[in-house]
Amino acid sequence: MNPERLRELIEAVRRGDLETDEALEQLATLPFVDVPDARVDTHRALRSGLPEVVFAPGKTPQQIARIVVVLRDNGQSVLVTRLEPEAATAVGAELGTGEYDDVARTYWVGPTEVATVGKGMLAVVAAGTADLPVAQEAARVARYFGNKVELLVDVGVAGLHRLLAANETLRAARVLIVVAGMEGALPSVVGGLVDKPVIAVPTSVGYGASFGGVTALLGMLTSCASNVTVVNIDNGFGAAYVATLINRL
Amino acid sequence: MNPERLRELIEAVRRGDLETDEALEQLATLPFVDVPDARVDTHRALRSGLPEVVFAPGKTPQQIARIVVVLRDNGQSVLVTRLEPEAATAVGAELGTGEYDDVARTYWVGPTEVATVGKGMLAVVAAGTADLPVAQEAARVARYFGNKVELLVDVGVAGLHRLLAANETLRAARVLIVVAGMEGALPSVVGGLVDKPVIAVPTSVGYGASFGGVTALLGMLTSCASNVTVVNIDNGFGAAYVATLINRL
Amino acid sequence: MNPERLRELIEAVRRGDLETDEALEQLATLPFVDVPDARVDTHRALRSGLPEVVFAPGKTPQQIARIVVVLRDNGQSVLVTRLEPEAATAVGAELGTGEYDDVARTYWVGPTEVATVGKGMLAVVAAGTADLPVAQEAARVARYFGNKVELLVDVGVAGLHRLLAANETLRAARVLIVVAGMEGALPSVVGGLVDKPVIAVPTSVGYGASFGGVTALLGMLTSCASNVTVVNIDNGFGAAYVATLINRL
Amino acid sequence: MNPERLRELIEAVRRGDLETDEALEQLATLPFVDVPDARVDTHRALRSGLPEVVFAPGKTPQQIARIVVVLRDNGQSVLVTRLEPEAATAVGAELGTGEYDDVARTYWVGPTEVATVGKGMLAVVAAGTADLPVAQEAARVARYFGNKVELLVDVGVAGLHRLLAANETLRAARVLIVVAGMEGALPSVVGGLVDKPVIAVPTSVGYGASFGGVTALLGMLTSCASNVTVVNIDNGFGAAYVATLINRL
Amino acid sequence: MNPERLRELIEAVRRGDLETDEALEQLATLPFVDVPDARVDTHRALRSGLPEVVFAPGKTPQQIARIVVVLRDNGQSVLVTRLEPEAATAVGAELGTGEYDDVARTYWVGPTEVATVGKGMLAVVAAGTADLPVAQEAARVARYFGNKVELLVDVGVAGLHRLLAANETLRAARVLIVVAGMEGALPSVVGGLVDKPVIAVPTSVGYGASFGGVTALLGMLTSCASNVTVVNIDNGFGAAYVATLINRL
Amino acid sequence: MNPERLRELIEAVRRGDLETDEALEQLATLPFVDVPDARVDTHRALRSGLPEVVFAPGKTPQQIARIVVVLRDNGQSVLVTRLEPEAATAVGAELGTGEYDDVARTYWVGPTEVATVGKGMLAVVAAGTADLPVAQEAARVARYFGNKVELLVDVGVAGLHRLLAANETLRAARVLIVVAGMEGALPSVVGGLVDKPVIAVPTSVGYGASFGGVTALLGMLTSCASNVTVVNIDNGFGAAYVATLINRL
Amino acid sequence: MNPERLRELIEAVRRGDLETDEALEQLATLPFVDVPDARVDTHRALRSGLPEVVFAPGKTPQQIARIVVVLRDNGQSVLVTRLEPEAATAVGAELGTGEYDDVARTYWVGPTEVATVGKGMLAVVAAGTADLPVAQEAARVARYFGNKVELLVDVGVAGLHRLLAANETLRAARVLIVVAGMEGALPSVVGGLVDKPVIAVPTSVGYGASFGGVTALLGMLTSCASNVTVVNIDNGFGAAYVATLINRL
Amino acid sequence: MNPERLRELIEAVRRGDLETDEALEQLATLPFVDVPDARVDTHRALRSGLPEVVFAPGKTPQQIARIVVVLRDNGQSVLVTRLEPEAATAVGAELGTGEYDDVARTYWVGPTEVATVGKGMLAVVAAGTADLPVAQEAARVARYFGNKVELLVDVGVAGLHRLLAANETLRAARVLIVVAGMEGALPSVVGGLVDKPVIAVPTSVGYGASFGGVTALLGMLTSCASNVTVVNIDNGFGAAYVATLINRL
Repeated sequence: MNPERLRELIEAVRRGDLETDEALEQLATLPFVDVPDARVDTHRALRSGLPEVVFAPGKTPQQIARIVVVLRDNGQSVLVTRLEPEAATAVGAELGTGEYDDVARTYWVGPTEVATVGKGMLAVVAAGTADLPVAQEAARVARYFGNKVELLVDVGVAGLHRLLAANETLRAARVLIVVAGMEGALPSVVGGLVDKPVIAVPTSVGYGASFGGVTALLGMLTSCASNVTVVNIDNGFGAAYVATLINRL
Repeated sequence: MNPERLRELIEAVRRGDLETDEALEQLATLPFVDVPDARVDTHRALRSGLPEVVFAPGKTPQQIARIVVVLRDNGQSVLVTRLEPEAATAVGAELGTGEYDDVARTYWVGPTEVATVGKGMLAVVAAGTADLPVAQEAARVARYFGNKVELLVDVGVAGLHRLLAANETLRAARVLIVVAGMEGALPSVVGGLVDKPVIAVPTSVGYGASFGGVTALLGMLTSCASNVTVVNIDNGFGAAYVATLINRL
Repeated sequence: MNPERLRELIEAVRRGDLETDEALEQLATLPFVDVPDARVDTHRALRSGLPEVVFAPGKTPQQIARIVVVLRDNGQSVLVTRLEPEAATAVGAELGTGEYDDVARTYWVGPTEVATVGKGMLAVVAAGTADLPVAQEAARVARYFGNKVELLVDVGVAGLHRLLAANETLRAARVLIVVAGMEGALPSVVGGLVDKPVIAVPTSVGYGASFGGVTALLGMLTSCASNVTVVNIDNGFGAAYVATLINRL
Repeated sequence: MNPERLRELIEAVRRGDLETDEALEQLATLPFVDVPDARVDTHRALRSGLPEVVFAPGKTPQQIARIVVVLRDNGQSVLVTRLEPEAATAVGAELGTGEYDDVARTYWVGPTEVATVGKGMLAVVAAGTADLPVAQEAARVARYFGNKVELLVDVGVAGLHRLLAANETLRAARVLIVVAGMEGALPSVVGGLVDKPVIAVPTSVGYGASFGGVTALLGMLTSCASNVTVVNIDNGFGAAYVATLINRL
Repeated sequence: MNPERLRELIEAVRRGDLETDEALEQLATLPFVDVPDARVDTHRALRSGLPEVVFAPGKTPQQIARIVVVLRDNGQSVLVTRLEPEAATAVGAELGTGEYDDVARTYWVGPTEVATVGKGMLAVVAAGTADLPVAQEAARVARYFGNKVELLVDVGVAGLHRLLAANETLRAARVLIVVAGMEGALPSVVGGLVDKPVIAVPTSVGYGASFGGVTALLGMLTSCASNVTVVNIDNGFGAAYVATLINRL
Repeated sequence: MNPERLRELIEAVRRGDLETDEALEQLATLPFVDVPDARVDTHRALRSGLPEVVFAPGKTPQQIARIVVVLRDNGQSVLVTRLEPEAATAVGAELGTGEYDDVARTYWVGPTEVATVGKGMLAVVAAGTADLPVAQEAARVARYFGNKVELLVDVGVAGLHRLLAANETLRAARVLIVVAGMEGALPSVVGGLVDKPVIAVPTSVGYGASFGGVTALLGMLTSCASNVTVVNIDNGFGAAYVATLINRL
Repeated sequence: MNPERLRELIEAVRRGDLETDEALEQLATLPFVDVPDARVDTHRALRSGLPEVVFAPGKTPQQIARIVVVLRDNGQSVLVTRLEPEAATAVGAELGTGEYDDVARTYWVGPTEVATVGKGMLAVVAAGTADLPVAQEAARVARYFGNKVELLVDVGVAGLHRLLAANETLRAARVLIVVAGMEGALPSVVGGLVDKPVIAVPTSVGYGASFGGVTALLGMLTSCASNVTVVNIDNGFGAAYVATLINRL
Repeated sequence: MNPERLRELIEAVRRGDLETDEALEQLATLPFVDVPDARVDTHRALRSGLPEVVFAPGKTPQQIARIVVVLRDNGQSVLVTRLEPEAATAVGAELGTGEYDDVARTYWVGPTEVATVGKGMLAVVAAGTADLPVAQEAARVARYFGNKVELLVDVGVAGLHRLLAANETLRAARVLIVVAGMEGALPSVVGGLVDKPVIAVPTSVGYGASFGGVTALLGMLTSCASNVTVVNIDNGFGAAYVATLINRL
């Protein structure tokens, strides 16, 4: 809980401006808004100026639309992630507004041009074409979160020349998101080429012994490059979220 | 490969200052130093001003000492990690210098006072006393890498009051390293309290279904807090390395 | 086998009231009723006054309806669990009675108002909206089993303020069921806030490294809170059953 | 955090009896005691009247002894668990007092006779002789926590007659702890014989496909008896802790 | 390869009755019959008088029908296993003969009454109704293979009275097949009640931590009863096959 | 429980020869003997004429010796399995009698010549020299249990000629135990050569991806030969026990 | 990167024939062609004269057709792998040319007769009919890559006579691809029969403990035959690719 | 079995030069030699002219020495693998001859200079210093098997410049063995640089999520380079064996 806010509350009580029960009530009820079928956390936006994010899986288009309406009516930008095309059509029909990216599966309700607040360039690097949906999600989210983003695709480690050709872009980035399935070796190689933080995203791309992304995940966790940290399989959003926090430092 | 250096090499060839074969030779031999039994990468230091790091497991005290001597004689600071006490005694006897921390299992040959170059404070937070060695490794490494570090221990999630008591420190940090074994829940809770990047380090602390840190690792990867990235089990060094890169941005 | 009944049987044999073969027969045939396609155990109801429970998966609507009819005609309340909506419609058509909850997927044939026999309040706490079906199953079952239930949803560990706001309810409960997917950290945090038994239910909610609930399960088994026990993934029914037994003590 | 205490603190601030900073200070520092090398949580004792418990693994005998001394000097009983024999000898030498059980590996510093506060009898049932250490730990802890305990050993499911011979004891228990390795089937069978809560403890006893207790753990989690909950492998302490909470209800 | 046949072949060569190349040819081509899309092994029938068996998965109804026709025209009985209902209808239409069991998913082309050649009774024991398909497959196959079979269903370990009521049948069997999902504990209990070989069949029945039959499989492999051996998950056919071999000894 | 014995007991009660309580007492106490630190099951010997078996792991030499003495004094033969050499020396010193096999790690207290009661020959087939301890355990146990045994070692599938050279022995066996580590392919090949029951024993022999016997275990469970059943990793004893039961049919 | 080309480039720079930036540009852009939605690597064909290969999964028929058109228009043969029948129809409609094999799921655009450049015969050996798709993919690919191929199917280890009948073919091969599901034992047996490199391909054929090919994979990795190497589950293409490289040596 | 030899045997029988029983005897006993405690396969040497190989684990120094003596006395070279230093000393003392490499853990009894029969150069490439023992084993074995070998160490993917500097050697090799632990990415990168067969050897080097080499193994199996096949973890010998077979083609 925000300590300044806590201090302010206690001071208000101290001055007699606030009753004890009221203080307790405020403590409990302030930071979220109840909409039908969901209790939306508005803390994130309050804290960081980032738009609200709605994770679509497990919600009906109606539920998603209702949440988005509440938030938009509160003047906030909203980003829906992991929204399948049919659901996107339904949500779009309800809202009558917003931008859908059918590769990234993101739905955006906010300004067409997001102001760049990230201090440097954020590179999203994907090993293969099949990794594009996750990479695109990361790139889209990072742009909506106010970063300048460069997206490099199909630069896997078995064709080093393509990766080395992009060396200048890699080294220009302030923080890098590296997306790969199969053996997940790309973050190790990229990590060795740059001296910036690399956020590795394993994807569920592959078959057989790739075990739905587990092999890529394990490979990234045991990377011989020391500047690599890892997020969950296919978690393009999470990578973009952390990269944004880093890029604002 | 550093593109400026590559360009410079090519230009030297162009000007006729360098023969083709020589250029190829230089390309190949520049960035590492051969010491007996090891080929030490000196790139890291060149690139980032960080000290050289020697990972001790699998090396004899004699091999470690020889590597350290070569590097020190080149004017570099050296940090040895994962060095067991008996080996540390042997290394110390060979070197006649250096500082050993028997909790962090680090050996340091360098200036007593490292200049702080990290821009903010780096918090290392550990769930239990048993997680201390990993947390201490992270804290030590981060200090040798020029960061101001605060270390909080024994603030596990089953005793929230202890964690909340440290809220001010948590929120003052520019980047956080959170260390936990067992169910590995601490990064999720800390991640919810701050809006800075959190690097989660699972530890092999626990028994039975903790599976040597796997449970903590999986818990951290599936954290419901979006600002959490993860490194390998017990990898306090890696967490400190990435945190350092972030703190220098 | 009930020792009093065994003693009684042996006494009857002793007094000559019962033939040996008859005794063996009774021993074998008493405690279950054969209905088409199933051998329904009526022990549970005899022993504890709890309604009969039919686990729907693997049974056709016709089979379920037939079992329910037999039991209802014996004057018992019946609860069907894990009944999918289409099957529920079919069962309802056959029975012409009963109450279906399409979130909990329970079908109830019994009194509208179940008498409260549990001694205290039973809290069902769920981390996220996606955990609601399992939490709702637990809450529904607990109510049909005669408990006063309070259901708290969307109080995950990455937004501690929501959980702390519910502290009074948590501490008022005599026994708690805590439902969570992803990293499954909620039982540890709740367990640290109360001094009552906490039954943790991992859910299959999540993706990637959540492995269909395995990560949550492992996290709960290695909880650093000592008052936590665990049931199978998505087993809301089992949690409610045990909580009921505890609440009747 | 205890809400009454929070309310009281806020009231004190309100009345002007307490400065804001002091209130924040108290909030943070009250609930634990710092002893060398450890921050001992004294909440548990405050809340429930249970003795303090020290988990020995990872602590030196000196550290354990120092913690025990601090707690004992505060007038509390202390229970050390998982203490190996050699460490027990060392701890005993430092303390000059206490009772060590070399099967349960517990060390007790407290009254010889603990008053029984649990409402009923607690049965600890173990499948085989090799499960005895875990069962004994559970039984010992339960007795130190004020329960009347009956311990049944070597009543595995492949020799049903031994188990059925103990039927009366099983049915007399208010709560049961069932300990088993190998296939871990005992809780299912016991669970079918009683209508009380059964806490299952898998043990690491076995070889090959028992995978250090994992098979027993999985078997217990998928038990066809609905009154079974599960704790971590070899976690006799945890089972006794929860059973104590239940037996005090 | 049959050594008598080998000896006979070599003798024929020796006597000059057979050319070397012919002998090699015979060695290679005797024991199988090529039908379109399959090379049917006729060894089994030659060796043991058992009917031919066709494993349906991965074959089209047309392929199955063609194989059955070839074998039937050679005067052999044929058993098709794991044949889904729709495929059975198609196969039946092609063949115009045969008996389909839609629970066991077996298709039989052979005499209505199979002569009993097994020496004793073979008991098939299933824990729950959901295990019936596998148990029925085992029972069906065992009957077609010439065994007298008794099938006991719904005698799981959490309701011991039902199992004990069947004790006489269990002890009358010459060999037992025990089928169970979930924790797979039934073979251990049955194994303790009889002194005959018990073949345990884990089923994929269950959810969550039953992992599609893996938990039952592991439980059976680590059974504390020494007279238990195990076959693959859901492998009712294999259990019946081995039980038949044993019952013919 | 033996139904004849139960019937006899009930009849005795009926005739007034036995009091109810006495009957219950007898029911409970008959089938096992309490020796210090163990409750020895004497059922097996009563039922089948087989010697008592003591599984050594987890017991001290003193405990083992005491159990053996009690059983021997009751006139029974005793077999200790998995007894390490040092423990064997200690047990031998206490007993002053018995035969130790340091490859099989068995200790035998009984007649030098065991009468052959098994009806046919039992073949124990081992893939490699490293599998010998498990194979030898199986062979030893089978001999002590009254079987004629032939032991074939080093006949792995990568050198088929050795296996085929033993074809006559394989086909002469009434039941076969096949022992293999690594990929565990031998039971499939042997199973295809004979039409008798094959009991497969995976061993923990191997390294890397053999995972302590798991790979061999899985290979045996998925064997394409239908006459193969499987026991736990390294469980030579269990295989011999079941083979004995089969060989006595 | 090809060192001769690098040398040539540097020489051109040296002679002043090439500007530095141009050289860097060439270094980066030469080896791939950008087509809509994909960056096609043309290195493989340049290096080895092998046709281009397009892995179909994750690409739409339109994308595949567009890639094939670009490559074909550059005068290259193209092989599409893992193309499902419906997609093949769509691709065929777009291209108006090419050969589809619905068992191997390959689509070939190139000369009807591929010149044989492999030095010897390549044998593809499959254990069962269900392994045919993978074996056929390997055989097809190997033929398109210029090898003489012999395909042997249904020669599993449980019917050794069939395999031994094919011994001459096996020993005539210069390199062998062995395809098997279930326990994956065939490569070990074949490996023992020949002294040539054996490439083992596990298939996902099987059920229960075959775990979608993992058991076969592990069995092949731990093969007791030393001439066996392994590729990913169902990776018929990869096996054919490596076998081709070997056969060209 | 060698078909020429079989034909020759059958012809001899045919001519009356050989009795049937004798032929069967020869068939069975020819291809191996019995030495105390082992049945040594001499097929390999007969077939391929390669030296005999003894895998040391599980054998005593005396057993190893005896086997080596028998083979050497038959005029064969012998290679012992995985021989630990103490055992090597003991073996050396018994034999009085031979060369031990304490990094590769190989013991060689044969000519000091082995004639080169492999057609090209064989490159052994290791990612890190810790992978050296496995790489050295591969290199040693390959040399004793008659190959020209180049060994490259410490060329991991996080420092690409070192690897690229060795490009000429890589491309000069006729077959490559690539050894790596941790994430096992090196074979993918090397595979992309060459158009020759690459045999990947995962090592057990690493900690935490490297799981004793499993992560490297999985990464190699899912390599995005098509010219990579894989052997068991740490199996330097197997890689050298297959590479030798390929290099002799």
